Amino acid sequence: MSDPVLSRFAAIVGQQHVLTAAEDLIPYGFDGTATFKAKPLSVLMPGNADEVAACVKIAAEAGVPIVSRGSGTGLSGGSVPVTGGIILCLVRMNAILEVDARNLTLRAQAGVITLKVAEAAAAQGLFYPPDPGSMKISTIGGNVAENSGGLRGLKYGVTRDYVMGMQVVLADGSVVELGNKCVKDVAGYSLKDLFIGSEGTLGIITEVLLKLLPLPAARRTLLASFDSMEAAAETVSAIIAAKIIPCTLEFLDQMTIQCVEDYSKVGLPTDCAALLLMETDGHPAAVEDEALRMEEIARAHGAKALRRARTEAESLELAAARRNAFSALARRRPTTILEDVTVPRSELAVMVRFIAETAARHNLTVGTFGHMGDGNLHPTFLTDERDTEEMARVHLALDEIVAKTLELGGTITGEHGVGLAKKQWLEKQMGGSYAMLAAVKKALDPAGLLNPGKIFG
Amino acid sequence: MSDPVLSRFAAIVGQQHVLTAAEDLIPYGFDGTATFKAKPLSVLMPGNADEVAACVKIAAEAGVPIVSRGSGTGLSGGSVPVTGGIILCLVRMNAILEVDARNLTLRAQAGVITLKVAEAAAAQGLFYPPDPGSMKISTIGGNVAENSGGLRGLKYGVTRDYVMGMQVVLADGSVVELGNKCVKDVAGYSLKDLFIGSEGTLGIITEVLLKLLPLPAARRTLLASFDSMEAAAETVSAIIAAKIIPCTLEFLDQMTIQCVEDYSKVGLPTDCAALLLMETDGHPAAVEDEALRMEEIARAHGAKALRRARTEAESLELAAARRNAFSALARRRPTTILEDVTVPRSELAVMVRFIAETAARHNLTVGTFGHMGDGNLHPTFLTDERDTEEMARVHLALDEIVAKTLELGGTITGEHGVGLAKKQWLEKQMGGSYAMLAAVKKALDPAGLLNPGKIFG
Repeated sequence: MSDPVLSRFAAIVGQQHVLTAAEDLIPYGFDGTATFKAKPLSVLMPGNADEVAACVKIAAEAGVPIVSRGSGTGLSGGSVPVTGGIILCLVRMNAILEVDARNLTLRAQAGVITLKVAEAAAAQGLFYPPDPGSMKISTIGGNVAENSGGLRGLKYGVTRDYVMGMQVVLADGSVVELGNKCVKDVAGYSLKDLFIGSEGTLGIITEVLLKLLPLPAARRTLLASFDSMEAAAETVSAIIAAKIIPCTLEFLDQMTIQCVEDYSKVGLPTDCAALLLMETDGHPAAVEDEALRMEEIARAHGAKALRRARTEAESLELAAARRNAFSALARRRPTTILEDVTVPRSELAVMVRFIAETAARHNLTVGTFGHMGDGNLHPTFLTDERDTEEMARVHLALDEIVAKTLELGGTITGEHGVGLAKKQWLEKQMGGSYAMLAAVKKALDPAGLLNPGKIFG
Repeated sequence: MSDPVLSRFAAIVGQQHVLTAAEDLIPYGFDGTATFKAKPLSVLMPGNADEVAACVKIAAEAGVPIVSRGSGTGLSGGSVPVTGGIILCLVRMNAILEVDARNLTLRAQAGVITLKVAEAAAAQGLFYPPDPGSMKISTIGGNVAENSGGLRGLKYGVTRDYVMGMQVVLADGSVVELGNKCVKDVAGYSLKDLFIGSEGTLGIITEVLLKLLPLPAARRTLLASFDSMEAAAETVSAIIAAKIIPCTLEFLDQMTIQCVEDYSKVGLPTDCAALLLMETDGHPAAVEDEALRMEEIARAHGAKALRRARTEAESLELAAARRNAFSALARRRPTTILEDVTVPRSELAVMVRFIAETAARHNLTVGTFGHMGDGNLHPTFLTDERDTEEMARVHLALDEIVAKTLELGGTITGEHGVGLAKKQWLEKQMGGSYAMLAAVKKALDPAGLLNPGKIFG
């Protein structure tokens, strides 16, 4: 990139919001995903959508690739600038623009931290359910671009289910609004749904319009320990077969429990093979009823210890401990490779067993946790990327896990996205529909300027 | 279309499944929308997806346009063959392929009647919530293609929220699978979401994979009458402000009440300006609680009479009466023009008043009913299309209502689709994003063979 182009960018965003020094660029060369690193030419910090649009126009004229990002908590390498170019980092765009209690909506700039969205809603008695593990640091724009999941997916769905609209800067630098405050709208193709989860490859999301719910009146958090992972998986199946859809059914295996307890010290039982963290919310009577029935079902499936959080603080503490699973595991070895395979719920017990067997067969250390109610597992390999021999075994194990997932009718990624990490398997999953991805991309970003090399290609 | 091409179609679907006689073609020249009529060259009734695919390939080679349809209950002219060509009518593809209670999914061919989907789910204690007014005759494929709404949208959302996957025949005649049984899946752009609501213009949906819920344990149906339409609208706002999200909040104005009561004889009070049909479902204690609170709120907003359905039969009867609103209104005059404007909930009272004033100003008869909890209104003009002077006034009134809707941040169509009926207003609503529709269409159907002339163009 020539200095005149850089000067044009600086004229838009202000010289103080342009990073070019080698040491300043390093943090923007990676995200939360192990092993992917690259170097951007420059990092720009625009302050509003018009600045984003002006930067896109300049980049388009100069033929410079653009990677947009927020906090860089992504777990599939989606914001790693593999083809160089500029990074547009939207963290300065961090205003909550409106909480509309009459229409149950919230409008925010893309750079708002997810937790701040939830807090702004809660301040008015309202509820933004999606709660990705990283919500304390991730941005809402990144959540929408990746269609992030979270711990409450079973009952409440994922980010997509709460996006009513957005402002997007397109590849030609135009700024468009998609969606509106209407709870029903079938005017034209759902472009909003196309942009949700498109990982920055179709446009740059600059504002989001989110749907809120009333805050549930009551909540119960339960913890059950099991002697086998299969017993935990079967408890999950039995709860759903009993027509209960709790808010949360989270799973932690022995390795994860040990790491989390070492890290969080919340008194998790460490003498068991698996833990289920179960949460039900809603009307107090319904919650009481569901909690009792879930306890019965867990007991019938051999739960050893059952703990019921007595206070809201204890509930939050247990959820926070689960939320720290990734960080807790990451302390063990230099490199943490986090998988995100998801299977139909009926295949959970098979999948959990297969993961453990595969790790053992390749003599690897794995901790598995995840959103068991959603069939979404995070087998996490603890390794060291400098050890090429061990890394080769890790990659063999990952290949086998992904192949098994597809064989069981699952998906290569439940909530982390394709990015760089899952590209190689996407065509196998999508089959004949894979070619449509490139066709859609070409239609909306003909020059291929937005986040090139991600998802496919 | 030459006879040799027709013979090729007949060789695929069987001669007995090809209609060409003028009198046989007439019923396929219109749908539930007033004033739109056209004539197809031929109607084909394929028996499976492979036959659909083979027909699409032949049509593509011969350059013959294709309109796919089910029962033809559409309310925006989406299946009217305005550019001629062939109709692919999928009603023979009416098998429910699987109810998977462990994964809470149902797989059906596109031609299954929506009510049969709900019944097949209910037979296993499961629940398919979307309930479009036409569900006794509409097909599930049509529901997905139009992203149909229904009476339960407020709490349960619309058809889109229950589509996990589909089989689609693309414009090149290839058959692809989109989605799967995983409750979370972020692998690639959400093509499934692009096809939902694309009104037959991007592909032909041949199978659908639907998400089910547990059947709610209890339900309460309430009926409240009001002396003014605004009081009913304000009751709806107050219920939502009280953090209650009931299953159903349906509105009927005086004209609609009278027509429905004449038609259904369920004992609706006819001495009021507006009725609200309210339904809450879920855990018995929650339902009892919500019903009491909704009654209190209705009374506080001046409800005159409050009726609580005492039995499930009475609940069903009241819902059925509401479901008959369109048919009941249609008996009054030769032509029924049904609008589908939707506004943010906060603008409901303004919109209801504007519709009544507009009809009065143009000296027109209107009956307004709709899904008030969703902000989705169906002002229905009772007229006679042979009366060109009155029709001119109807069109003036419609233009004014649509303009007001957009001014209030609403949408030109909440659940009926754009089709032919709303094309003229779509660009105004979409603004800068309108051009993307044509770009996406060109990417997926470059020859423009699938349902040409619909939505845009």
